[in-house]
Amino acid sequence: MDPPAGSKYRFGPHEIDDRQVFLSTPHSFAIVNLRPTCPGHVLVCPKRHVKRFANLSLDETCDLWITAKDIGVRLEQYHRASSLTFTIQDGPHSGQTVPHVHIHIVPRRKVDFENNNDNTGAINAKKETFDLDIERKDRTMEEMAQEANEYRALFS
Amino acid sequence: MDPPAGSKYRFGPHEIDDRQVFLSTPHSFAIVNLRPTCPGHVLVCPKRHVKRFANLSLDETCDLWITAKDIGVRLEQYHRASSLTFTIQDGPHSGQTVPHVHIHIVPRRKVDFENNNDNTGAINAKKETFDLDIERKDRTMEEMAQEANEYRALFS
Repeated sequence: MDPPAGSKYRFGPHEIDDRQVFLSTPHSFAIVNLRPTCPGHVLVCPKRHVKRFANLSLDETCDLWITAKDIGVRLEQYHRASSLTFTIQDGPHSGQTVPHVHIHIVPRRKVDFENNNDNTGAINAKKETFDLDIERKDRTMEEMAQEANEYRALFS
Repeated sequence: MDPPAGSKYRFGPHEIDDRQVFLSTPHSFAIVNLRPTCPGHVLVCPKRHVKRFANLSLDETCDLWITAKDIGVRLEQYHRASSLTFTIQDGPHSGQTVPHVHIHIVPRRKVDFENNNDNTGAINAKKETFDLDIERKDRTMEEMAQEANEYRALFS
């Protein structure tokens, strides 16, 4: 299913403003996030509107993940992070809120990670309570466009 | 880096018992989990011992994710689940505890998801507090071998 006329990119029911898109490949596109959990939290989506990961063709699967890998490398460096989280919430009971396949890529830092620990305050390398869907505030298009401009420069 | 003689599969510093492996492809292998978070929680790893996702070649990346997609479809059906979580904890500050790339694949159900909600008990579709590294008990090799046998039959 293609995006409606007038919009080049579609994300589930949403038409995506071009200013939010910082990378486009044969089968995928990458956007900055309306409600990032931390700096550099972006989404990579297939151009074709499909709900579940299983719906992707071999070419789409490879393109999506090679694109995600490349974006992860650059954003980790750009944000002076030390790790990355890659996640697909695939289906409504995994926390997927937009019914269009998307990879969350989140640059992670030691301090973010330690702050994600349990209430005892102990540093526990095994603990991963990172919450992709914690309550967050919508950003303006201007804020998102500015961030997308910065990332576009990393791929030019 | 290849696994040491006598062991066909290696997962970071660990030699993996063949009985734990239920699928092998040109570049990847899939194992049942020592400490699954819920039924069907398995891991897919590249055969080559690399720490970070960025270290994978294009062929390894495609093989890993096409394998993960196929496993997800079959385990979701086998466990009568309705969704899947796919995650790579890539680097020490994303919760990676074994320094060898691995995808977590977790079949998800409505009931698991609702039980993962906040303390108010409210059902909130946006909430995803699924914790990959919650305290869990090691299983015996016999338990794991039995599960791997069941999964092997899905791919034969």
